[in-house]
Amino acid sequence: MKRPKDKIVIEEIPGGVMAAAGFRTASLHCGIKRKKPDIAMLVAERRVPVAGIFTTNRIVAAPVVWSRRVARSGWARGVIVNSGNANACTGKTGEADTREMAALAAKVLDARPADMFVASTGVIGRLLPMTKIRKGIRALPEKLATGPRAATDFARGIATTDAFLKEFAVRVRVGKRVFHVGGAAKGAGMISPKMATLLAFLTTDAAVPPPILKRLLARTAETSFNAITVDGHMSTNDSLILLASGGSGVSVGKDALLRKALLEGIKRVSIHLAKEVVRDGEGATRLLTVRITGARTKAAAAAIARAIANSPLVKTAIYGGDPNWGRFLSAVGYAGVPFSPSKLRLILGKTLIFAGGEPRRLSSETIRRIFAEEEIDLTVEMNDGRHDVTVWTCDLTPEYVHLNSAYTT
Amino acid sequence: MKRPKDKIVIEEIPGGVMAAAGFRTASLHCGIKRKKPDIAMLVAERRVPVAGIFTTNRIVAAPVVWSRRVARSGWARGVIVNSGNANACTGKTGEADTREMAALAAKVLDARPADMFVASTGVIGRLLPMTKIRKGIRALPEKLATGPRAATDFARGIATTDAFLKEFAVRVRVGKRVFHVGGAAKGAGMISPKMATLLAFLTTDAAVPPPILKRLLARTAETSFNAITVDGHMSTNDSLILLASGGSGVSVGKDALLRKALLEGIKRVSIHLAKEVVRDGEGATRLLTVRITGARTKAAAAAIARAIANSPLVKTAIYGGDPNWGRFLSAVGYAGVPFSPSKLRLILGKTLIFAGGEPRRLSSETIRRIFAEEEIDLTVEMNDGRHDVTVWTCDLTPEYVHLNSAYTT
Repeated sequence: MKRPKDKIVIEEIPGGVMAAAGFRTASLHCGIKRKKPDIAMLVAERRVPVAGIFTTNRIVAAPVVWSRRVARSGWARGVIVNSGNANACTGKTGEADTREMAALAAKVLDARPADMFVASTGVIGRLLPMTKIRKGIRALPEKLATGPRAATDFARGIATTDAFLKEFAVRVRVGKRVFHVGGAAKGAGMISPKMATLLAFLTTDAAVPPPILKRLLARTAETSFNAITVDGHMSTNDSLILLASGGSGVSVGKDALLRKALLEGIKRVSIHLAKEVVRDGEGATRLLTVRITGARTKAAAAAIARAIANSPLVKTAIYGGDPNWGRFLSAVGYAGVPFSPSKLRLILGKTLIFAGGEPRRLSSETIRRIFAEEEIDLTVEMNDGRHDVTVWTCDLTPEYVHLNSAYTT
Repeated sequence: MKRPKDKIVIEEIPGGVMAAAGFRTASLHCGIKRKKPDIAMLVAERRVPVAGIFTTNRIVAAPVVWSRRVARSGWARGVIVNSGNANACTGKTGEADTREMAALAAKVLDARPADMFVASTGVIGRLLPMTKIRKGIRALPEKLATGPRAATDFARGIATTDAFLKEFAVRVRVGKRVFHVGGAAKGAGMISPKMATLLAFLTTDAAVPPPILKRLLARTAETSFNAITVDGHMSTNDSLILLASGGSGVSVGKDALLRKALLEGIKRVSIHLAKEVVRDGEGATRLLTVRITGARTKAAAAAIARAIANSPLVKTAIYGGDPNWGRFLSAVGYAGVPFSPSKLRLILGKTLIFAGGEPRRLSSETIRRIFAEEEIDLTVEMNDGRHDVTVWTCDLTPEYVHLNSAYTT
């Protein structure tokens, strides 16, 4: 029998990445972008356990190559981030620029370069304006601060085409033991669900050994940042980084319940931020939740969910509120996964649309009403096995096309 | 040494599907669509050798299930096609409706139902208006005609959202032996390159045994209808059908040169029609040719070409003439294929953009000028092997979104 104090209680709180004790942030405008803050820093008081997950794109930006090494070591002091330029496809010069960013950030913090994550986001194929970045990094330390405002400043500093800032935090309580998980994310386009998409930074003040941190982050990514798509285009710069300060004094390591509590806390923050990224999908007006249930394998469920979530025809129908549900079905059919069409059931909201190989006789008014909702829930029951996957996506709108047809100009 | 008369000469001629002798067509408006012709017929004088390639979607429309069987037999009398309704996801009723279409068409032609291909295209998930279709099929025979006008009427009868009709024909000459290949296609959206997309009907008056016809069609599809994409959404109804009347008196079977000539003729017609489909991609304003050279395998080359051609970010950049070539590279990187980024070279038109892991120093004016072209040629040299693939696609425009956000309404 569990004692009552062993219950995990998770509550939303303000404060973003600063909700966890033991961190400071700073951001400022150094001139990469026109007016917005474009360089930012998130640092722990000392070297702390960390974990990271990065793009699975075979063409990776210089900062990703660097930060993977930092993540492998399991320890870091903090993160230096610039927005407005991805430092991707920039060759040896790009590598040297990343090294210099790490070295400069380390110097102003009195840390080792190998302890600084570097993350860059923005246009691909252009060299970083290093003169501006050098000045920026040197000016950052005097801006380092704690508190909710510092957290929001950091979220602003990492944003690019984001229409709104993405921050979230929770307090995790297990009996008398209390710790926090906070996070900030940026991303609106070039979002695909095959790895930790976009840039996301998570903090916790739980004390966690690196190997456990790594495991928890991997399990979280699968159902949050890896379960979203805006346009199916995988970035060269995706980075999900988690830092654990230990500032709460709660040690999560040997206690299974505490590990579970931390996992749940990280998941809550990650799923919230991931869904916010989709809601802010470039030009998006609607959120589509795609639930695949009863697939033969997890991979099959994921492939079907992605085929639906990435189809421009599905996404334009969602945009127009056009009750063209046949597009969901045809996408299921080309996902490259074997299944029995006659067993498949299609449910929109709570309404069964298609079963036994035929459409249900519904009034077009009924279907039209479901498609008119701002958030649309699609469930495809495969009835072929016991694996479920949920993916979130947004609609495809004329605004997405406008934004992305003139990104560099 | 080849004798001069052994040279293959292929010339473009007018006449579409009617350029080949031994066929008749008819089309009319029966009421599925508002005003346009929506039912059509293409028939040979007698039972002739045929071949067919169909969607690889696991959810297939009733007419595809039927027509696959006809293709397997290797012989048919003709095709009955309706546009405006795909008869897909319509269960047992849909199957019965397809059977009835074949039976009715066979009856008016005094043929066997099993000798009639059936093809349907349009919205998914709605039952066919059979009363209208019955009337339509009964009225078709008196309209049967030959000549270029009949060919164009047929092309009009199979169209849906097509902005222009797609017809093409060639005369193939090998010494004194002359035969013809003609074709018509429909399709503008729901076009993906993993099988013979859309509806396409090819005719030839060469005399060809069914097994050879089948082989030639498969080889053709790979580099034409399977090498295009508009939106990466694979249809439930894609059908590519080839009929050989033998009307020219030229027997293509044992003679390798004649087989080669026929293959080239079919390819010329198919590639032309396939590119026309892409040019007419819903809302399209620009054509992008993606050439992958020197890949380790054919499959790798195709996967990379498709990753680029299906990326909404690539397609919006093409639309806007935005010189954001980093998107080509990041798409190469997530195609799921191993390669050496340092060996990769990116060429736009004739200008080398990226090599040895870094961008070439080009004036932004130079790059901008290339992106301003109406037809853009992208070559990605992998320098990893000896396999090449070419894929054609179009841009993604606000008009595509508008068209597809209100398709059924």
